[in-house]
Amino acid sequence: MRLLHICLFLTVFHPSFAQQKITGFFQQNAQRQLAFEKQFDSLLSTSNQDEWMKFLTAGPHHIGSAKGKANAAYKATLFRQWGYETELAEYHVLFPTPKFRSLELLGDKPYKARLEEPVMAEDKTSGIKSEQLPTYNAYSADGDVTAELVFVNRGIPADYEELERMGISVKGKIVIAKYGGSWRGIKPKVAAEHGAIGCIIYSDPSDDGYVAGDVYPKGPYRPGQGVQRGSVMDMPVYPGDPTTPGYGSTENAKRLGREEVTTIMKIPVLPISYEDALPLLQSLKGPVVPDGWKGGLPITYHAGPSTSKVRLHLEFNWDIKPLYNVIAKMKGSHFPDQWVIRGNHHDGWNMGAADPISGMVAEMEEARVIGALAKKGFLPKRTLVFCAWDGEEPALLGSTEWVEDHAAELQKKTVAYLNSDGNSRGFLGIGGSHALENFFNEVAADVQDPQTGVSVLERKYAKTLASADRSTKAKILGNRYMKISALGAGSDYSPFFQHLGIPSANIGFGGEGSGGEYHSIYDSHDHFTRFKDPGYHYGTALAKTAGRAMLRLANADVLPFDYNTLTGTITEYLTDLKAMLEQLRSDAEMENKLINDKVYQLAADPQLKFALPKTKLSVPYLEFSPVENAIAVLKKDTEALKKRLSGADQLDAVQLDKLNAILYQAEQKLLYEKGLPRRPWYKHQIYAPGFYTGYGVKTLPGIREGIEEGNWSEAQERIRILASTLADFDSTIKAALAMFN
Amino acid sequence: MRLLHICLFLTVFHPSFAQQKITGFFQQNAQRQLAFEKQFDSLLSTSNQDEWMKFLTAGPHHIGSAKGKANAAYKATLFRQWGYETELAEYHVLFPTPKFRSLELLGDKPYKARLEEPVMAEDKTSGIKSEQLPTYNAYSADGDVTAELVFVNRGIPADYEELERMGISVKGKIVIAKYGGSWRGIKPKVAAEHGAIGCIIYSDPSDDGYVAGDVYPKGPYRPGQGVQRGSVMDMPVYPGDPTTPGYGSTENAKRLGREEVTTIMKIPVLPISYEDALPLLQSLKGPVVPDGWKGGLPITYHAGPSTSKVRLHLEFNWDIKPLYNVIAKMKGSHFPDQWVIRGNHHDGWNMGAADPISGMVAEMEEARVIGALAKKGFLPKRTLVFCAWDGEEPALLGSTEWVEDHAAELQKKTVAYLNSDGNSRGFLGIGGSHALENFFNEVAADVQDPQTGVSVLERKYAKTLASADRSTKAKILGNRYMKISALGAGSDYSPFFQHLGIPSANIGFGGEGSGGEYHSIYDSHDHFTRFKDPGYHYGTALAKTAGRAMLRLANADVLPFDYNTLTGTITEYLTDLKAMLEQLRSDAEMENKLINDKVYQLAADPQLKFALPKTKLSVPYLEFSPVENAIAVLKKDTEALKKRLSGADQLDAVQLDKLNAILYQAEQKLLYEKGLPRRPWYKHQIYAPGFYTGYGVKTLPGIREGIEEGNWSEAQERIRILASTLADFDSTIKAALAMFN
Repeated sequence: MRLLHICLFLTVFHPSFAQQKITGFFQQNAQRQLAFEKQFDSLLSTSNQDEWMKFLTAGPHHIGSAKGKANAAYKATLFRQWGYETELAEYHVLFPTPKFRSLELLGDKPYKARLEEPVMAEDKTSGIKSEQLPTYNAYSADGDVTAELVFVNRGIPADYEELERMGISVKGKIVIAKYGGSWRGIKPKVAAEHGAIGCIIYSDPSDDGYVAGDVYPKGPYRPGQGVQRGSVMDMPVYPGDPTTPGYGSTENAKRLGREEVTTIMKIPVLPISYEDALPLLQSLKGPVVPDGWKGGLPITYHAGPSTSKVRLHLEFNWDIKPLYNVIAKMKGSHFPDQWVIRGNHHDGWNMGAADPISGMVAEMEEARVIGALAKKGFLPKRTLVFCAWDGEEPALLGSTEWVEDHAAELQKKTVAYLNSDGNSRGFLGIGGSHALENFFNEVAADVQDPQTGVSVLERKYAKTLASADRSTKAKILGNRYMKISALGAGSDYSPFFQHLGIPSANIGFGGEGSGGEYHSIYDSHDHFTRFKDPGYHYGTALAKTAGRAMLRLANADVLPFDYNTLTGTITEYLTDLKAMLEQLRSDAEMENKLINDKVYQLAADPQLKFALPKTKLSVPYLEFSPVENAIAVLKKDTEALKKRLSGADQLDAVQLDKLNAILYQAEQKLLYEKGLPRRPWYKHQIYAPGFYTGYGVKTLPGIREGIEEGNWSEAQERIRILASTLADFDSTIKAALAMFN
Repeated sequence: MRLLHICLFLTVFHPSFAQQKITGFFQQNAQRQLAFEKQFDSLLSTSNQDEWMKFLTAGPHHIGSAKGKANAAYKATLFRQWGYETELAEYHVLFPTPKFRSLELLGDKPYKARLEEPVMAEDKTSGIKSEQLPTYNAYSADGDVTAELVFVNRGIPADYEELERMGISVKGKIVIAKYGGSWRGIKPKVAAEHGAIGCIIYSDPSDDGYVAGDVYPKGPYRPGQGVQRGSVMDMPVYPGDPTTPGYGSTENAKRLGREEVTTIMKIPVLPISYEDALPLLQSLKGPVVPDGWKGGLPITYHAGPSTSKVRLHLEFNWDIKPLYNVIAKMKGSHFPDQWVIRGNHHDGWNMGAADPISGMVAEMEEARVIGALAKKGFLPKRTLVFCAWDGEEPALLGSTEWVEDHAAELQKKTVAYLNSDGNSRGFLGIGGSHALENFFNEVAADVQDPQTGVSVLERKYAKTLASADRSTKAKILGNRYMKISALGAGSDYSPFFQHLGIPSANIGFGGEGSGGEYHSIYDSHDHFTRFKDPGYHYGTALAKTAGRAMLRLANADVLPFDYNTLTGTITEYLTDLKAMLEQLRSDAEMENKLINDKVYQLAADPQLKFALPKTKLSVPYLEFSPVENAIAVLKKDTEALKKRLSGADQLDAVQLDKLNAILYQAEQKLLYEKGLPRRPWYKHQIYAPGFYTGYGVKTLPGIREGIEEGNWSEAQERIRILASTLADFDSTIKAALAMFN
């Protein structure tokens, strides 16, 4: 901490920031803003975060729980105290909870899975059984199935190709998959597509357990009976209440019947610990799995099937439960109808300390300090909205329903949505709209890392460089610019970003607070304060980063959207996609040569059952020119706009107001009204979660997934749609340009 | 097996080979040779191999054992029956065996290591205790040491750099290292160099155990109590009897005292099983090891030190034991003083079925059939020498002492030495002198793979191609030429090749007979016939390959050495070495930039002890031109010779005889009389085992190791020596060329 003090000292006595520029601020306003930010930083407290976390994680606080409702009320009270107009936004959603869970290995070495996480003396809240959610996957089907078991590695489509080569079918079987490699909901979805009748997901110690480090309570990693809960709803189709797709699930909303819902998993699914998985995996016969499939248990991993059968029996309460979002507004002094929204969910799988309370308490501290400054007269120019979402864990329920319920107003008013979720010690990570990439680089350069005293941007650069391979090092040496990642799925930005086209970002620190508490009862105050962010120094770093971003967006003279950077990023995605198509083509050609020359046949061990690879279909050339032409125009126009914006101080207030409205609504033009193929809810044409990856983003998703799945005509059609979308978007840029004529 | 029959059918009725050429045979002789080879193939029997293996593996037959002596006598009797002049060549060598072995973990969770491989009902010979060698490392020091334990990964120099970064010293400690990543003798050598006082080596299941597949007796892999025995003598300095360096250890030879010997390990060393290793590894504290160090046991791997101490107590009998090589000669009809030598060792660590008897019985079958054909009048033109070496396992004792004892005669007479050792189902592997690379490609094209019916060359090509990555596939597609590997250490070719400069090769099949029997009591007839080469079909393939190579070398009109290919290979090694130097230079520059910019400091987790990397010394430019000029001349001359050799049928018998003598002795010119730095026994300037890798070859070893160890002046000096060696070699090529003037 010594370095930290020295640097604060420097900040106070060296007025070196006096000449600092901030993109979007006229020179005279920049200095005021920087002073404001300095005050903001200085008022942030770590002890508040601990106090709130202690309260909020004192019991299970999932959607529908008494504690969850109490937590919402607690936060609402605080926000009101801090000067925010606060409401509890209530929705009513389908949230299944377990009625019966049983998993047994039958046969001559029977085993009944424990399915329970033990109480630990070192973890004070692990013994709280009242309202504790047992280990389960939300939106699994009810079912009682008995069948042989097959190990499917991660359970993604490529794994089933490998199984086919091994001559193993999962039809009529129960599959067991490792967590990881995709969002968990992909595993039962793909299993069901291949005819499996049940799915077990377990945390392998090679990914999440003793291989990484000492297990809880000795160390932070997942103990032998630890289980990752989580949703398996088919959210890549649409998130939110499955019975109210596309509109708010208010108390009396019209609902689909459960049988009409397509996103509830078709087969029973259950998550288990690696100790429960061990006897199941030991029962498997058949070939030894490929090296990449092997885990960290002390066994030989076989693909199966098992000789003994497995019985999986699950029944759920399919109840409609109320959820409570907290929505706290501070009206902007100049532009009350331009909203900068900040959000983090407040529900957890049980105690949920790291996920989500670590981010929640940072957001609360931002709100508290801004409230305190407002009382001193430092009012934000635009309206700030602080949200605490309920029901994120099962299906982004609270955020999605609220967004769907207020879609038109949000599209009209929202400047940007800034999300956080879990937070821990380490390095800054940002994903989001690339129009905000430059903006976040500036913000990150002004936030100090609590452990080293350099900026969080500088530390991120050091980490990226130190971890890079030889050739990458040479490329990035000296380049401190932080590329932000594209957003797939996994937290409450989805409805804002991918459904409404509101510029969004997800912000968090991590990398030095690793652990295995995720979605277990051990994600507790005890665990968090020992391992994730002792002292909440990175909670404060998150508050500085997100808070600073909020304040800059709220007070900017010209909103700092850089569509030229976004255009450059889209260009990179297209280049990448064309290279992928070329690679697919040359791979298919090579593969077919090898198949025709009997190379695989001669190379294979004749004693192993091994189906030879099938001849690949040849990969056609696609016509990319419509998108290329659209990008060329866009590049020219966004370059011109970027230049013009630096002279925006010449515009009058009315013009400026109009320009800002164009700027913050521009990204909405990247939506396509009919959305993506087979999932109209996802309208953004640049970013979407992968249909077969879940969390993992697919950029230019329509075209990319068309190519990946060999659906060439669809890929070609999506090129046309993207070109037309980009042309629409360009007309907005042209409108902004016209403001300068 | 169906394909096999079809193909034999084709061979018999299609005289398509009638026009086949064989390099080194004049056209009229090539057809006779091919007919001879056909007869040879047809007489090979698999049942003989099984009969001999059953006898030879019926009890422990290591050097100094009664069974080993009986086995030598048994083989001598057979060779004599087959028409060979056979002698038992006896030497007397230092061979330590255990008197006392104990390994204990002290402290509050004490553990006494079992150090014994259990008897298994499924393995008939595992219960034979008479003369069974216990689990130990030969040439370990005596010692009784008690100290804390440190885990050193593979125990190679790079691992100690990593330990230094973690702030851990092994000074005064006992180290525990995983087998693999280097020859085992490197581990205690490097440990002792760093101040360790004892060394434990264990087989981690991630390398050698249940991770690969089911363990014995269910499957072929190493069981929980299986132990890899083996030598830890410092053989990269010199192999053979350590008390008679450079000369034969005949009964009354003058010997170094044990205290004068430099190659006996300085500290006590013991190999253990993974079940014995588990409690030791669990006792370790300190940082979690880097990912690359982690093994397959169900624990978190820590670097140590341990809080409890470990006591390692070892005492050995340091006896001089007799060894018995079997040397069987069939005099050549035309050139009795030109010898083609074939060898395989006959001693094993206990039953030694795969290692070495699988190769031994193939060699015996070659000799039997050649003997039978000789009785029918098909006498080889050159003398064939079939050898069965004793004492290979401890230190290549039998071969080295015999070679040292007959060095001058061997250099005068030996055309080539062909070695084999273990053999199993799978793909052909050949390493050796690159002057024989084309020769072995021709041989491999004419041997049929027993499982697929294509040639073993074609199957090797298919395997290489199918296993290659994307970019390599494109490079090798359609190119069926087999690059042979360079020889480091690991079997009886070393004295012939690296000490005397006799063109050598090591031949074997493998890749589909994997297992964990290596140097354990389970390397048995039971294991071999279930898992390694059921039916001995690859024993026969080895006999066809090595036997065919023997017969072609014995009968060639012009010996098929291709020094142009060798020159091309040397050129590749030089290119590779220059690229390595450039890489070292740019890595050092990059590393120093990162250190100066505090990149590692800022990227490191401040909560972990981590010594920052030290600034690297800058890498100088070396003057390679002497070698480059020598290679340029050599390239021109070997190209010219290659062309001239195709017209060698114009030479008369005397000239041809002289030419052949030049050809087979040429590689001896690649020796440098004073050998390599700090190890004069290794005289070959192109190939040597690595001083710090053991098995692993170092090509252009003087220069390469100078560069790797940052000894720039030595590297420069070795460039000069290599250039002068190549010039000497070139004068031989010029002498051969002169034969055509």
